Amino acid sequence: MLYPDSMLKLIERLTKLPGIGPKTAQRLAYYIVTLPESEVKNLAESMVVARQKIIYCSSCFNLSETDPCEICSNPFRDKSTICVVEQPRDVVAMEKTGQYKGLYHVLHGAISPLEGIGPEDLRVKELLKRVEAGKDVTEVILATNTDVEGETTAMYVAKLLKPLGLKVTRIAHGVPVGGDLEFADQITLSRALEGRREM
Amino acid sequence: MLYPDSMLKLIERLTKLPGIGPKTAQRLAYYIVTLPESEVKNLAESMVVARQKIIYCSSCFNLSETDPCEICSNPFRDKSTICVVEQPRDVVAMEKTGQYKGLYHVLHGAISPLEGIGPEDLRVKELLKRVEAGKDVTEVILATNTDVEGETTAMYVAKLLKPLGLKVTRIAHGVPVGGDLEFADQITLSRALEGRREM
Repeated sequence: MLYPDSMLKLIERLTKLPGIGPKTAQRLAYYIVTLPESEVKNLAESMVVARQKIIYCSSCFNLSETDPCEICSNPFRDKSTICVVEQPRDVVAMEKTGQYKGLYHVLHGAISPLEGIGPEDLRVKELLKRVEAGKDVTEVILATNTDVEGETTAMYVAKLLKPLGLKVTRIAHGVPVGGDLEFADQITLSRALEGRREM
Repeated sequence: MLYPDSMLKLIERLTKLPGIGPKTAQRLAYYIVTLPESEVKNLAESMVVARQKIIYCSSCFNLSETDPCEICSNPFRDKSTICVVEQPRDVVAMEKTGQYKGLYHVLHGAISPLEGIGPEDLRVKELLKRVEAGKDVTEVILATNTDVEGETTAMYVAKLLKPLGLKVTRIAHGVPVGGDLEFADQITLSRALEGRREM
């Protein structure tokens, strides 16, 4: 015997979490069994509660406890703009800027032929339906990642939306703020140059 | 709002786990809320069950579901030898070598003045008592880590045990100096065991 049964089971289940290898799972399991029982119960409970309460907003498909979500149902948000992102965490990143007052649409991934992910696996259909139904939508900002998958997805979605006659924009590519020109790759620098604006 | 409440709570609690930063906690939380509910419940339950079932063996202080533990109560283990380690995971590492047939004693740490950990915070007293009581113990192998804290602990324990007139050995420095027992490969660990020398 190497581990007591209950320990082994815990380690096995922790190993299934993303980014948690066998060594990390062992370390976590040892930590968990030495925590006060109340803390372990709190952690376990918060997992189950989150899983039970969190649903997808039926409008923007962000994670939420309410449907529509707090952003979609907020009367102070600008309903004429939809920002399209890949993941719920991108909504959090956007919100942290404090600059964006419009709505969101979470695709839940990006087109990736290598991983077998096509447009039908994403919330693209729902975005189209939403834009067609909402007469007040005047701009869709494509804020998918700037990697190959994100770019492909942005181009695909743009092609579908443009015939509907609204403004379709893409977030700017450029040198990150606080970044050194020297360390920017050539493609980024070319894009930064193309996107230059008058001061 | 950046996260729904239940999500925020889950992220906060995950962040308290060792080696889990805010970014990893976010990633885990997103993963957990998209798992089938039954899997989340299983994971949560295995945490609580492990915490409730796992106790310290009152003889060797290893983690166990029974007292005495499976190793201490195994009639086929050699009761004349006690291998002293810092952590329960070190017992697992030793057992994996398949070389060692004696008993263990888990100190639960190492002497570290910098972290304010003295001998009184470890299971040293219990080791002494155990050796004094058990007339059949003829050798104590000190298999604490080979870093400064582990060496200090080994020397300290050796000093206490030697007057009792038994053989006190230290695992050989086949284990890379400054290394954690947990990360040593099985052959290195076997060699270290074979090459032990009297202190």
